Amino acid sequence: MSVYVIGHKSPDTDSVASAIAYAALKKAQGVEAVPAMQGELNPETKLVLDKFGFAAPEIVTDAAGKQLILVDFSDIAQGPANMTDVVEVVDHHKIGDVTTNNPIFFYAKPVGCSCTVIHEIFKTNNIAIDKGIAGIMAAAILSDTVNFKSPTCTEEDKVAVKALAAIAGISDTSALFMDMLKAKSAIDGLPIKELLNRDYKDFDMNGKKVGIGQLELATLDQAAGCRADLVKAIEGLRTEGRHSVLFMLTDVVKEGTELLVASEDTALVEKAFGAKLTNGAMWVPGMMSRKKQTVPPLQKAFGC
Amino acid sequence: MSVYVIGHKSPDTDSVASAIAYAALKKAQGVEAVPAMQGELNPETKLVLDKFGFAAPEIVTDAAGKQLILVDFSDIAQGPANMTDVVEVVDHHKIGDVTTNNPIFFYAKPVGCSCTVIHEIFKTNNIAIDKGIAGIMAAAILSDTVNFKSPTCTEEDKVAVKALAAIAGISDTSALFMDMLKAKSAIDGLPIKELLNRDYKDFDMNGKKVGIGQLELATLDQAAGCRADLVKAIEGLRTEGRHSVLFMLTDVVKEGTELLVASEDTALVEKAFGAKLTNGAMWVPGMMSRKKQTVPPLQKAFGC
Repeated sequence: MSVYVIGHKSPDTDSVASAIAYAALKKAQGVEAVPAMQGELNPETKLVLDKFGFAAPEIVTDAAGKQLILVDFSDIAQGPANMTDVVEVVDHHKIGDVTTNNPIFFYAKPVGCSCTVIHEIFKTNNIAIDKGIAGIMAAAILSDTVNFKSPTCTEEDKVAVKALAAIAGISDTSALFMDMLKAKSAIDGLPIKELLNRDYKDFDMNGKKVGIGQLELATLDQAAGCRADLVKAIEGLRTEGRHSVLFMLTDVVKEGTELLVASEDTALVEKAFGAKLTNGAMWVPGMMSRKKQTVPPLQKAFGC
Repeated sequence: MSVYVIGHKSPDTDSVASAIAYAALKKAQGVEAVPAMQGELNPETKLVLDKFGFAAPEIVTDAAGKQLILVDFSDIAQGPANMTDVVEVVDHHKIGDVTTNNPIFFYAKPVGCSCTVIHEIFKTNNIAIDKGIAGIMAAAILSDTVNFKSPTCTEEDKVAVKALAAIAGISDTSALFMDMLKAKSAIDGLPIKELLNRDYKDFDMNGKKVGIGQLELATLDQAAGCRADLVKAIEGLRTEGRHSVLFMLTDVVKEGTELLVASEDTALVEKAFGAKLTNGAMWVPGMMSRKKQTVPPLQKAFGC
C-alpha cells in the first residue's frame, strides 16, 4: 500500500514542495510514497513546479483507506476527510490536535518553513537531494520566509537555502523570489472589477462613506497596463454615494504604496497622509497595511 | 524563568532519566532547565539514581506559571495540573492530545525508549554526555526494552546503550538490568499477606473455587526466605472453602514458573500441567502468564 505525503488545505508552495520532497526522501528509503495535495496549485506554486520540472501532485480530499504522512500541518481541520491513519508528521507550525494510536515519527521545529526541516532530515539520513527537489525546496523557504524578511525566519532557513540553491544551480535566490512574487501578484488579463473587489472594504468615517481597496504587487509596473482603468473605476465607485475611494497599489518589495484617490475633498486626504496628490495619486513610503497605516490617519483627518 | 523538564505520572526510570538527561542537555545549551517528576521514585529508579550519583528530581504536580518540556509523554491526562505552557516535547509513545499556540520543537520517534531519542539529540547537537547521565540513560533503555527483549526495541536502542555504556563505564549491561529487575521485584521484609494479595484472583471452575496468585521475580532465590511461609499461607487459603490454591513464582529471566500448589486433588493439577509435584511444587518451563498459560489448562482439567 502506498503512503500519501500531503500538505494542508489551500495548498501553498511549502505544503506542495514538502509533499514532493518528503515523498522523494521516503522513496529513497524504500517506501512507496506518493505526493498529494488538497486543492489546485496557486499561481506561485505552479510557477515553481514548472520551473523545476514537476507535474502537479495528485489531489486527495478524502483519506479513507489511505495511510498519510502530514507535512506542514498537524491540525485535523487542515487535513482531508477521514484522516485516521497518520504514520508520520513533519511540520514547522504550532502543535495541532492530530493524535495517533501507535508511536510514529513526529518532527516539528520552530523554523520558517517545513522544507527547512525536511532538508535537515535528508542530511541526517545522508540521502542526496535531486537538483529539481532542491529547487522547489529552496523556493518554498524563500516563499515562507518572504525572502528571509519574515520574523519567523531563522539562521537554519538561510543555511538551508544556500545549500539547496547550490544543488539546484540557482545563482540568484532574490531573483527567484521576485519571479514567485510576480506570479503570486499577477493581474494580467483580469477584469478591473475583480481587481477592485479582491480586497475592498467600505468604512464609515464620521458619517461619510469611505472605500479602501488594496492590491499587493511585486512591483508597481505590474499595474501599468490597468492603472488608467483603475482610476476611472474608483471615480465611478465614489459617485455611488461615497465621500472618497482610496485604492492602494502596494509594492511589497519597495515597501510602500501608490495611493490612488477619488474624493470630494482631496485636501483632506492630502492632510491625512502629509503628501500632495499628482494626477490623483501619491506615493506613501512604508505604507503596507490598510488596517494599521491607512485607516487610522484617515479617521483622524475625518475627525473620528 | 526556569523551564521544567518533566515526565509522565507514575514516574518510571525512563521518564525520570529523560528529565535529568534532557535538562542537562538544555543547560549545556544555556537554558535554565530543572528536571522534575510527578511522584515518588519507584524502587528500580531509586537504585539507578543512587548507583549513578543523582538526587531525586523535584516533584511538580501543578504547573501553574511554569514553562514545561515534556519527556516520555504527550497526553494531557499524563501531565501535571495546569499544563498550559509547553515549550518542547521529546517522546517515543503514540502522539497525544497536547497542543500549543506557537511553533515548538516536538520530536517523537517509534523507538524503545525516550532516552534513545535524547541520545540522538545530544549527538546531533555535538554535546558531550556526562558519565553519570550516560549511566541513567543506558539504564532507562535497558528498563524500557526489557534488556532488548521487548517487541518495541529497535536497533537504535541497542546502538545507544552500547555508546552510553562505554561513556558510563558499564562493563556488563545485563548485570545492570538484573540489578534493576531485582530492585523492582524486591520482596524482602514485606508481609506474606501482602505478597499473597499483590496479584491474586479467585476463579470458578466447574463449581469449584480455585485461587491463583502470582509474583514476578528476577530470580527464584528472591523468594527463598519466604517460600515456607508462602506454602503455609496458600494451604490456609485453601481451607477457607477452596478446592485449590496455586501460587506462581515466575522467574522473568529464566522464563518459567515455580508453581506452589495446595489442593484437594493434586493429581488433577499434575494432569493439567503434565508434571509431578515435589513437596507441593512443580517447575513449569515457559509459564509466564496466568491468563494465557495457567487458567486454560486448569479449566480443561476441571472439565469446564
